[in-house]
Amino acid sequence: MSLVVHKYGGSSVADAEKIKNVARRIADVRKSGTGVVAVVSAMGDTTDELIGLAHSVSSQPHPRELDLLLSTGELVSCTLLTMALGDLGHEAVSLTGSQAGIHTDTSHGRARIDRVDTARMQKELAEGRIVVVAGFQGISADEDITTLGRGGSDTTAVALAAALEADRCEIYTDVDGIYTADPRVVPEARKLDEIGYEEMLELANYGAKMHPRSIELGAVFQVPIYVASSFNQTPGTLIHGNADKKQMENRIKVTGIACTTNVAKITVRSVPDQPGMAAALFEPLAQSGISVDTIVQNTSEDRTTDISFTVSGTDLPAALAMVGDLTREMGAAGMVSEANLAAVSVVGSGMQHTPGYASRMFRILADGKVNIDMITTSEIRISCIIKEEQAQEAVRLLHRGFALDQE
Amino acid sequence: MSLVVHKYGGSSVADAEKIKNVARRIADVRKSGTGVVAVVSAMGDTTDELIGLAHSVSSQPHPRELDLLLSTGELVSCTLLTMALGDLGHEAVSLTGSQAGIHTDTSHGRARIDRVDTARMQKELAEGRIVVVAGFQGISADEDITTLGRGGSDTTAVALAAALEADRCEIYTDVDGIYTADPRVVPEARKLDEIGYEEMLELANYGAKMHPRSIELGAVFQVPIYVASSFNQTPGTLIHGNADKKQMENRIKVTGIACTTNVAKITVRSVPDQPGMAAALFEPLAQSGISVDTIVQNTSEDRTTDISFTVSGTDLPAALAMVGDLTREMGAAGMVSEANLAAVSVVGSGMQHTPGYASRMFRILADGKVNIDMITTSEIRISCIIKEEQAQEAVRLLHRGFALDQE
Repeated sequence: MSLVVHKYGGSSVADAEKIKNVARRIADVRKSGTGVVAVVSAMGDTTDELIGLAHSVSSQPHPRELDLLLSTGELVSCTLLTMALGDLGHEAVSLTGSQAGIHTDTSHGRARIDRVDTARMQKELAEGRIVVVAGFQGISADEDITTLGRGGSDTTAVALAAALEADRCEIYTDVDGIYTADPRVVPEARKLDEIGYEEMLELANYGAKMHPRSIELGAVFQVPIYVASSFNQTPGTLIHGNADKKQMENRIKVTGIACTTNVAKITVRSVPDQPGMAAALFEPLAQSGISVDTIVQNTSEDRTTDISFTVSGTDLPAALAMVGDLTREMGAAGMVSEANLAAVSVVGSGMQHTPGYASRMFRILADGKVNIDMITTSEIRISCIIKEEQAQEAVRLLHRGFALDQE
Repeated sequence: MSLVVHKYGGSSVADAEKIKNVARRIADVRKSGTGVVAVVSAMGDTTDELIGLAHSVSSQPHPRELDLLLSTGELVSCTLLTMALGDLGHEAVSLTGSQAGIHTDTSHGRARIDRVDTARMQKELAEGRIVVVAGFQGISADEDITTLGRGGSDTTAVALAAALEADRCEIYTDVDGIYTADPRVVPEARKLDEIGYEEMLELANYGAKMHPRSIELGAVFQVPIYVASSFNQTPGTLIHGNADKKQMENRIKVTGIACTTNVAKITVRSVPDQPGMAAALFEPLAQSGISVDTIVQNTSEDRTTDISFTVSGTDLPAALAMVGDLTREMGAAGMVSEANLAAVSVVGSGMQHTPGYASRMFRILADGKVNIDMITTSEIRISCIIKEEQAQEAVRLLHRGFALDQE
């Protein structure tokens, strides 16, 4: 029997009517003879409400407790969807992350899936049931509930599809696919019929709304991922491995423009130019869970160096407190920081074979009077750190400049 | 180290301020050097809201799904209380029913605790932590989440106190103890300093607000249970074994008046007077989870008999559907039913040794023009089924008639 994994985001299960709508969509697939495992996020803004509740009783909620609290959001939506399927005459069963056999490490709030024990899911599927799994969560070796980080239900879905060897993973959300840029910012943005994992990973890391880990998993296990709307039948975007190859052959250079806001920059000035300084700076940040993005190091002539890096604006206060201490220990001259920045990126799998894309990006931004603060590149991406207030304009300029509005 | 189990009901953890208040109460006990395991119910009306949500997506929510849904209410309150304790500088850890080792049978919605595996709790207590356990829930041998029925957190608390051999179990609620009658109905009702398990069990079965199974467990394992308010320091009521003996010696006859409303009566008429008829009637009801209370069978001269019994008004429609079929199968003449009844009970451990209590009860009700529909008695209780609209007046008449307002 063919098997698909569906994933429904929070806006798709925000109220009773939407849950019943999702139940009907799943029932239609099941009636056609295909097995279905459905992964659901928490209803609407539930996760934010639970975080608010936590902060109403504690200034610094313990990560372990926060994980167990947040995991309840997905339990509610997954039991309700299961009940709605029952009302449509289908045998369905809800499973917690733990019951679904999703084993993770112990990093509360950003746990990684170690393995999926599919025995219970296989048993329920073999008995003809639709399996509804609470997304975003798993269980650690300590038998504590963990969560995978914001957007983690995408990763749950792809991990289950890989473990169950499903035919494909379908991510249903409130947008109808992957676009060349955010359509709310660039009205002429085009929907992509297909995209490769690598390009999608760069888009997901730099602005598009999927959990990056889900794309990585999809690439490793070659799970085709279909992204579409839960509210209509408009064709969506298929993320799959052949798209990578096809695009390279066709030499379509730029696939899309991504944008991340709420970026902050910290510069440590006049760091002694000795081995081990970067490690001394970044190891403590990593250990306390602060994710560092772009890193730029400028060599200078006086045997010292400036190190600049970006973090999420949310992590800035914690990062500053830590870096202040480290600056003294390292014998650096001091530090400066800047908030309210954004990262705009040009993503495309053909870029690494073709010179001139970076200079074209810088020219487009310069002509638009957008000042570039930092630059970083990967094989298939060029990113510029700019002022947040210029981010939307920069995305529009780049979309037009690279002619993405034309097929 | 001495150890107490606290239980806080839904009204005691209804919002952030109340949760912080509970955290301070627990912290005070912990500071005195006593180990604490706290069991919590869901916040305020959460359970009712979740039931409403279930009925918004399904006309008949599956009991297994409903249990997993309802279990989330206690997870939320127990993680929030744990966070609040952390903010007061105490090491605390929340445990789900499953993590706390509460193993139950598979009767969803009214599961019974089979055993408590205390290993995880013992480990956390040994490390000096306050353990906060989600009440009302456990895990079945199928690894499914079960709930213990309304008020089940009382039972969780007493079961944990028994398994951990705690010094006592303290139930904190929105009333400050056990009264001779409901103080909202009888203003002159007196609070009892102590009461025996047996009397409390009759009170709990017939109106007082504790889960009857919790009293049974307390009696079996001789766990002293202290019932008091979570909002003040007023002394409460201690339920313990010595109170049974003491009251028998003192020959205090009547301890309190209990009242249950929402009672319905079904009478099956002209049942053939053959062996097995009662079993044929009540076995199917029990199997479908309908709890039958008072049963009265009137023998007659024509080799047929009338069987009357009471059920909760909530179960009446389901019971009628089932009994209608059974009536035909049994060859009975038909059935009649009556809703909006109440059970008023006189409870007291001295009654079984002293004649005349029943007749005195019937006289008091007769003088108050309260008609008695059915009568049932136990060793320490006499109950009368009357019209619901006369229930409050009957409780006041009996409280005065048995001089319960006097010490």
